[in-house]
Amino acid sequence: MDTDLAAYLDDFTRRDWETLDPDTVDDPVRIAVVGLGWFAREWALPGIARSAYTEATVVCDVDPETTESVAAARDLTGVAPEELRSGAVADEYDAVYVATPNATHLGYVEAAAEQGKAVLCEKPVESTPERAERLVAACDDAGVPLMVGYRMQTDPAVRRLKDLLDAGVLGDVVHVHATMSQTMLGELSTDHDQWRLDPALSGGCALMDIGVYPLNTTRFVLDAEPTRVFGTTRTEHEAFAGVDEHASYRLTFPDGVEAMCSVSQNAQHASRFEVVGTEGRAILDPAFYEREDRGFAVVRGGTRADVDFEQVHQPEAEFAYFGHHLLAGEPFHPDGEHALGDARTLDAIYESAESGAVVELTD
Amino acid sequence: MDTDLAAYLDDFTRRDWETLDPDTVDDPVRIAVVGLGWFAREWALPGIARSAYTEATVVCDVDPETTESVAAARDLTGVAPEELRSGAVADEYDAVYVATPNATHLGYVEAAAEQGKAVLCEKPVESTPERAERLVAACDDAGVPLMVGYRMQTDPAVRRLKDLLDAGVLGDVVHVHATMSQTMLGELSTDHDQWRLDPALSGGCALMDIGVYPLNTTRFVLDAEPTRVFGTTRTEHEAFAGVDEHASYRLTFPDGVEAMCSVSQNAQHASRFEVVGTEGRAILDPAFYEREDRGFAVVRGGTRADVDFEQVHQPEAEFAYFGHHLLAGEPFHPDGEHALGDARTLDAIYESAESGAVVELTD
Repeated sequence: MDTDLAAYLDDFTRRDWETLDPDTVDDPVRIAVVGLGWFAREWALPGIARSAYTEATVVCDVDPETTESVAAARDLTGVAPEELRSGAVADEYDAVYVATPNATHLGYVEAAAEQGKAVLCEKPVESTPERAERLVAACDDAGVPLMVGYRMQTDPAVRRLKDLLDAGVLGDVVHVHATMSQTMLGELSTDHDQWRLDPALSGGCALMDIGVYPLNTTRFVLDAEPTRVFGTTRTEHEAFAGVDEHASYRLTFPDGVEAMCSVSQNAQHASRFEVVGTEGRAILDPAFYEREDRGFAVVRGGTRADVDFEQVHQPEAEFAYFGHHLLAGEPFHPDGEHALGDARTLDAIYESAESGAVVELTD
Repeated sequence: MDTDLAAYLDDFTRRDWETLDPDTVDDPVRIAVVGLGWFAREWALPGIARSAYTEATVVCDVDPETTESVAAARDLTGVAPEELRSGAVADEYDAVYVATPNATHLGYVEAAAEQGKAVLCEKPVESTPERAERLVAACDDAGVPLMVGYRMQTDPAVRRLKDLLDAGVLGDVVHVHATMSQTMLGELSTDHDQWRLDPALSGGCALMDIGVYPLNTTRFVLDAEPTRVFGTTRTEHEAFAGVDEHASYRLTFPDGVEAMCSVSQNAQHASRFEVVGTEGRAILDPAFYEREDRGFAVVRGGTRADVDFEQVHQPEAEFAYFGHHLLAGEPFHPDGEHALGDARTLDAIYESAESGAVVELTD
């Protein structure tokens, strides 16, 4: 690896955002986890436990049996949704992590805000821009900190890629390609997670659930907002009737950089993010799924360097950032305003897919 | 590799189009090579010599010194453009290979057609759709066979990828990503090849010169024509004033498959073509440049197989196909009509880039 690269990629998994010493944390942020689907059970709860800055204390799900079994297995307080929203056990948590179906985020976040609790809300933040705005306003009005769960933003691979871009090591960005797909029917086989097929609960399928990854990752690494979008959605398989099975979209950024993105809920697993610059390319492949090791390669002067680094547990890194910033009193990068950028852009892509025309985004 | 794949990928470099025995060819097709730029000198002439079905006999360039030196080095007849067009040495060749700047193809092809010679014309076939149509009509009217030099179509990696798609081994195609870029100012450093910067000679730069690869390769492997396009072009570096330095475009195919493509004449070298299907992905990386080994990988059931195969000399394969089909009296796949599809699509992409709107393509 050339020296320019090494300067940015040594100590690859460093937490550039960490100002506290994790070994000195006596009172980690106590978190109530709402929505005990596959991701919360398999990834978020373990991530909260691994992070020095957080601990789970309360769990909650619409399904009482799920709540009971998770609470028992982890020795936590299990409550029903109405109990949580009423604040019945509010003295047992400092923050609420909302991992319920998209269209139900608002109610839980409003309740948490009323209780004065910090919020970590899963992305996409809500099912429509209007509801997303209400959610953000609820936290603003109550003065509670809101972070949105873009776990790619705390992944070292993504942060190092951004470092290279910020330092100009890849030259000027020319274009971005991103693709992400899974066989949703096969990989997420439990009914519990199939709310994604219900547009009233999800707001959309391939684009809402998966499309937010290429979109947000591009916004984050370019530190820029798309000015226009063009998208299409498509549904072939009957299981996806009423929602988008496949979607593809391109995002135009102010300086003319184009991001070419495609996502699918029913295609061979793919997970790839590439930035092509005048002086170099950076490739994350695999890129997006919590359950796969990230790949990181840089091509400069025609030579490709594949970086071998210790994989992090993505939710651990995300919850560590959340807890750390609450304890340190620092603002989140992926906050509510940031998330509204995705909400508006996803909506514009759906509008473009419906109309067949390019949609301009204005502030 | 699973048995399904092996059935299609064994004997990887087989010439599925070859019906003659190359060892029995006594009278190869004699070719006049017009336009002795870098590609003709370094790749086409060696390719013609390697192919059992062809031999070069005449060379021609606007620069007399280049003509003389190439003719001397290879012991060929060197002629000036006006001599070639007048048919002064027409008894020395059976076919004309045209590798001059795009906007000058027409004159050479018209002359060859008048002489009753078969034509292999480089892509893009001309600088505008109108001139491309005149070129194709000239060959049709004269009854001479016309092939257009899409060397990807005779590359085994591309043909095997198409085999997998045709056999349904990858399921239904969901989307395509392709990117191709080079540092043109650095890689093509001689003045002789810089006609690409002159729109009057080239008809365009990144999109015309490079964009035709992702476009045509996608058309070929999907065996389908795009129905609408949306594209953008961009120029930052002063050397590209008046032409497109970067371009990106998406192609929509009749069944809703979207191809997301980006190209650049001034970015870190990239050369990648990927098809994502419901049952598998196929990846060519590197894909497009004659001067790099092609990579071929298939992902099915989450498992990636990288296929190791003997690389072919792309121009040799292309000229072998050309000579073979002339000797066998078989029609070319990449013929004039096929090339007009690219000419119209490239024009529509430029139109889209100018208007900022989606452009529908109609027959």
